[in-house]
Formats: sequence, structure tokens, C-alpha cells
Amino acid sequence: MPQVNAERLLNDLRKLRTFGAVDTGVVRPALSDVDIESRHWLKKRYEEAGLEASIDGVSNVFGKSRNDGPALIIGSHSDTQPRGGWLDGALGVIYGLEIARACADDPSTAHLAVDAVSWQDEESNFIGCLGSRSWCGTLDPAAEAAAVGRDGTPLADALRHAGLEGVPRQQIEDGRYVGYLEAHIEQGAYLEDAGEQIGVVTAIVGIRGMTISFEGEQNHAGTTTMGRRRDAATALFEVAHRINEEFPKVADERTVWTIGQAKIEPGASSIVPGYAEMALQFRDQDEAKLDAFEKIVGGLVDDVNNRGKIKAEVASARAPIRPSNMADNLQKHIAGAAEMTAPGKWRRMPSAAGHDPMVIHEKLPCAMLFIPSIKGISHAFGEDSHDEDIVAGCQVLADATATILKEARGEM
Amino acid sequence: MPQVNAERLLNDLRKLRTFGAVDTGVVRPALSDVDIESRHWLKKRYEEAGLEASIDGVSNVFGKSRNDGPALIIGSHSDTQPRGGWLDGALGVIYGLEIARACADDPSTAHLAVDAVSWQDEESNFIGCLGSRSWCGTLDPAAEAAAVGRDGTPLADALRHAGLEGVPRQQIEDGRYVGYLEAHIEQGAYLEDAGEQIGVVTAIVGIRGMTISFEGEQNHAGTTTMGRRRDAATALFEVAHRINEEFPKVADERTVWTIGQAKIEPGASSIVPGYAEMALQFRDQDEAKLDAFEKIVGGLVDDVNNRGKIKAEVASARAPIRPSNMADNLQKHIAGAAEMTAPGKWRRMPSAAGHDPMVIHEKLPCAMLFIPSIKGISHAFGEDSHDEDIVAGCQVLADATATILKEARGEM
Repeated sequence: MPQVNAERLLNDLRKLRTFGAVDTGVVRPALSDVDIESRHWLKKRYEEAGLEASIDGVSNVFGKSRNDGPALIIGSHSDTQPRGGWLDGALGVIYGLEIARACADDPSTAHLAVDAVSWQDEESNFIGCLGSRSWCGTLDPAAEAAAVGRDGTPLADALRHAGLEGVPRQQIEDGRYVGYLEAHIEQGAYLEDAGEQIGVVTAIVGIRGMTISFEGEQNHAGTTTMGRRRDAATALFEVAHRINEEFPKVADERTVWTIGQAKIEPGASSIVPGYAEMALQFRDQDEAKLDAFEKIVGGLVDDVNNRGKIKAEVASARAPIRPSNMADNLQKHIAGAAEMTAPGKWRRMPSAAGHDPMVIHEKLPCAMLFIPSIKGISHAFGEDSHDEDIVAGCQVLADATATILKEARGEM
Repeated sequence: MPQVNAERLLNDLRKLRTFGAVDTGVVRPALSDVDIESRHWLKKRYEEAGLEASIDGVSNVFGKSRNDGPALIIGSHSDTQPRGGWLDGALGVIYGLEIARACADDPSTAHLAVDAVSWQDEESNFIGCLGSRSWCGTLDPAAEAAAVGRDGTPLADALRHAGLEGVPRQQIEDGRYVGYLEAHIEQGAYLEDAGEQIGVVTAIVGIRGMTISFEGEQNHAGTTTMGRRRDAATALFEVAHRINEEFPKVADERTVWTIGQAKIEPGASSIVPGYAEMALQFRDQDEAKLDAFEKIVGGLVDDVNNRGKIKAEVASARAPIRPSNMADNLQKHIAGAAEMTAPGKWRRMPSAAGHDPMVIHEKLPCAMLFIPSIKGISHAFGEDSHDEDIVAGCQVLADATATILKEARGEM
């Protein structure tokens, strides 16, 4: 079986961290100069690992094995949030590189086809999962034409600036792949709380987002009696509070919902609000539960409308994301490898955050592995994981890679 | 008894409306060019009425009777909201002018001392009730030095621009006045709903304003379980909704409360809010009720704090305004006059909005009269009243003026 080289792994992770390092965090948004610089460094590391390296037209970096398939492609994204942590994405990218090297180093696995990849813009600077969408052929041309970065730069200008104008975009090669594997920090605290080392992801949760708006009548806060008021904010507070009372009756311990935005207009202490709206988002791995929450919201909004004072409306705030199930067979191999490296210290769990496999699983079987996040901190400079967990996670994924590919080749 | 000249009254009101007219509304903020222009016009009208007219150093316009006291001073403010109605303030100003004229026209009242006034900046462009505060000697020099208009102009610059630098500020003349009378549109719909024509104001309600803040912990909306969250917005929604459930148990039919502002930070649909705050304001003519509401808020905030997840705090958002009682004797005269002009069609009522008498009643007995607002609309371009109500209100206040002053002179 392949042996991960802990020092080589950690050194490459730390090197990648230097591109855009700020304090303990990293600022390396998609297509920034430092992001492109880091991708050229990664391409060089792929080459040094004996892979056929390339940067494609949307700046995905590929390190393709010179072996024939069946192949696995292993990686993640190396772009970051505007003020991101050092491991989000980077961990999975360096795992891909190290697993390709570890397999090549071992005579029993040197014949296996392990491709490595770093996707572009998983973090939605321009378009969430830009790189994996492009590879899967599901990037919407209209969305691409309209895409503008957080700093106002159109995507086409950013690609030109990166020297990628006219560079071909690679697409998934028919028949080559058994599947796609991605490792990631958990971004939550289940593993740490339980004293466990590995999470085998069962599914990426579905997400629905909606805007609930309330239309009343703006009026003088002194002279308008309570009976005459049509106060949009009062209706919002009621619906928001009742959501927080009703959702727990349907939720399980992993369901989450968030009212992260609210707006009250005109927003003056002496004026009865004429308009209010809020953003509600909820996530679950079970589509039927998502439907049930949507029904609860509909009922609460109906209650408001039936009283005839406030006109309440629900609108989708985003395209709904359906739960993405991870492939059973790939999960089974990761679970088996986890039990070898961390006996009794792993669990199956859904991913509550979104990842490139949400896009890729429509084209290829996918699986994910989590390692513990210290205190569950993520999308923040304080994000970190223990070295021993980083190494153990890579070993588990390397072992799974070997057994998946050997099984696919009929060698097991 | 004095006879109000309906045509003269309505013509002057319509003339004042032309200064700053926009659609059906008026834009004549304190110390704007058009405001100062209108004050020079008013000064001229006071002169034509035989009054001793002047504009003082804060641009109050006075029309002083040449008769000796005991005197009444009658008026209101002629500055408007940023986009105001045509009668708010203007009505009471032109009533003062017309009552001085009507009393002078009638041999039985020509000897009475009726002063007219237009205060400056009741509507808080620079400092709410700037003019009446200056006249009463209660204008805070520090607040004046810091005062800046909505457009960013310092008060001192605006006064200089109006040609008022070094112009003396008039203060209340000791011993001259029996009291101050002000007429105003109701700005609510009690009178119209009841088919009544005159409101005799009992008190201007007290106002308390507070900011309630909630401090939790910002986190990832996907990976942070509900149990681990310290969601500031959830606490805000709960307290806001419970205020709307608990206040009615203490309120009477005239109590009002408003949550007119709410802020949720960072305000993204995918982030558990770490901070939230809202503005709560409540008004009542009974100080004990205001205390009771404050106690309810304290209890709700304690409930949140006792759970130990969110740190909630209440802070005063404004200096509390105590209820201002109108003088019994002046009320009695207005009520008597109302019964003559509108028998059975008047009522005693508090004012839910603030007015200059909140300042003046600390120095002089005050009384106010309301006429109906069509549909209760106020602080908006749609503000209006029926001509017959405008004329009736002026006649009632003129009659009351005559009996108040005659009583004060021992002539009744």
C-alpha cells in the first residue's frame, strides 16, 4: 500500500499557504495575481511528481497520470474566501498531489492512474464552482458572460489578465474515470467534539434560500393608532419567530436554518415600517424535509395574508441545491481505509457546506473525506487543523485510492 | 366676538404653500433659502396687520401687538419636513396672523394683546424646536455648537447665510403672557373617524426610545449546528415578537409603540448573525405606563441573558420626553369655544406627535387645538384638511383667545 510522506505533504501545504498569506489566514481569491502565481507553482509541483501538468482556459490546474485508466481524479480548489483560512480547499489540493506521488513511489501502486486537480473559484468570486462546472460541461454561458468579481472586474477581463484568453478548457475525458475524491476540513465541530479523526461524507446537504417580503403602509409612529397600523416589521418579527418555533418540530439534529438578513424600510425609529424583508436559508440531506420546511413557511405567510393587513410573499432567493449523495462504493473504500488508520475513530456524516462534488457528482461518482477543524472554525483566519489529523486523512485517502483502483482493475 | 375672515385666512395659507411647493406637498426645511424667503413674506403680513414685526437671530418671526398685556402668543412653525405636507406648522402660523387681525377688526376685542409667531426648526433639520428653545432660554449652547443640518451645513453657517449673524435673539418677555396657543392638524384619524371637527389637546404624550442590542457569535450557516449557535438575530426576533405580545396587556387604546429599525450583522444569508440591534420607541400620556413598558423590555432582555448564549443590552436611544400637560384653564376656554362653533363635534384628546408646546409649557401655560387630517395622513405630500374644518378651527381659537384675554383682564 502507498505510504504518505508526512514531511513532503506538510511542506507543500505550508508553501501553498505563503501565496496570499495574511496573519494566520490567506487572501487568495480566484484569479487574483497571487492565485495565478500559486497555480503556476502547483503546475510545477505536478510536473516534478511526474504528472502531465497543465493550466486550462479557466485556470483549473491538472496533473494527469501517464498511466492508463481506470483512473481517479483527486483534488479540491486552491482559491480562497476574501479573508479565508489556510486549509479550506488547499488541503484537498495538496492531498491529490501527495497521493499521486505516494502511489508512484510504491511498486504495488505505481501502475495506478491517479490524476490530481485544483479547481478554480469554488468560493464564488465570479461563479461558484466555475472550474468544476467548466470541466463537467455544465457552465452556463449566459452566467459566464454576466459574471463579475467581487472587485467589479468582469470574468473575461480577469481571465485575459491571467493570460488565459484563447487557452482551451479541458473537459472530463469519457471513460477514463472511476470517480472523483476530495478531502476537506470539516468546517464544523462534530469530529473534534467526538474525539474522532475521519469523517466519511454520505451526502452534501441540499440548500434552499428564500426571501420573505412584507408590504404594509408607512406611517407616523406617534399619531397612527396600533389598530390602524399596517406595520410590515411586526409581521416579519412574527414570521421569523414562528419559523424558529416550528422548524425544530421537523428538524433532526443536523438540520440547520438561518435568517441571516433582514431589512426594514424606511428604517427610522419614528416611522411605522411600510416594507420589510428577510432572507431564510435551510439545509438538510433529505429532500422531503426541505419540502416540509418550505410548507411551514408557506403556512406562516398564509396566516399573515389571511389577516388582510400585510401582503406577505415568498420568493426563491437562489436556485435550490438538491442533496448530493456520495457514491456508496467509494464511501465503502474510504470507510475501510479509515478503520485501518483510525480504528473506531471515524464516522459517516453529511457535509453541511457546499463543495465541487455537488457539481461533479452529476457526471462522475464522488466521495469526500473530512478531517477535524479545530473548534470548528472555518471561513476565517483562525481556521486550523492538527498536523497528525492532516497526515492521517491523507493516508486514509491514499489507501482508499489504491483499493478503489485495484478493485476497478480487477486486481482485488 | 372676533369674526375670522375665511377668504383672507385661506388665501394666506395658500400663499405660504407656494414657498417650496412640490406637487401637492411642500419642501421648506428650516433655514433653506425658500424658508427664509417665506419668513420675510410673513413679517410683511404681520406689519400689514398692524403688528410690530421682526425676525430674530434664530429666524423666529414675531408679530407683536402694540397693545399692552396680558397677552396671548399664538402660532406654530413654518419650516417643514424634508418632504412635508402643506399644513403641518403652516396652519397654526396663519391662525396666529388671522386671529390677531380678527381681534383687531372687532371693536369688542381690538384692545386685546394678541401676538403672533412662527418658530424655527420644529422639524429638527438642525435642532428640534430650535426657535422655541431659544425663546424660552433653554437652548443648549453645546448642542447648538454641534448642530449640523441634514445636508451637512453647520447651523452657524446656515444662520450666517440667512443674514442673521449678530442679529439679537428674542426671549420671552417677563410678565407679558397669559399663555401660548397653537393649532395643528391632528396627523391622525380619530377626529375624521368620529365625524368630529375639533380636538382640545389634554397633553402631548411622553416618548421613550431605546436601542436593544444582541451579541452572539458569527458562524458558518451550513456547518454550525443549531445547538452550538449563538445567533443574535434569533434573539432579536424573539424579543421583538414578545414586545408585540406583551405591550397590549398594559397599553390603552392610545398607547403606541414602534420597532422602526433593525440591523443584523454581517447580514449575509449564509452566515449566522453575530450581532443584531433594534430601535424601540413608545409613547403615552401617562408616565407610569411608560415605566411599565420599560419594565417589560427589561424582563424580556433578562430572559435572553439568563439563557447565557446571547448578551442582550438596553440603552436609551434619546433623552426621554416626559408627557407635557396642557393648561386646564386654557383647555376650558377652547372647549367652550368648540361647543359654540361645533356643538357635540369636539373631544378632548392627547397629542401623539411632538410640538413646540413641549418646550414652551415649561415657561408658560400652553394649549393646543386640532382639526381633522384627511385620512390621518401627515409628514407626506398627501397631507390635507377640508376648508370648512380649517375655518372652523380658526374661529374656535379666535373665540377662545377673546375669552381667555378678557378673563385675564377681569372683563368677564
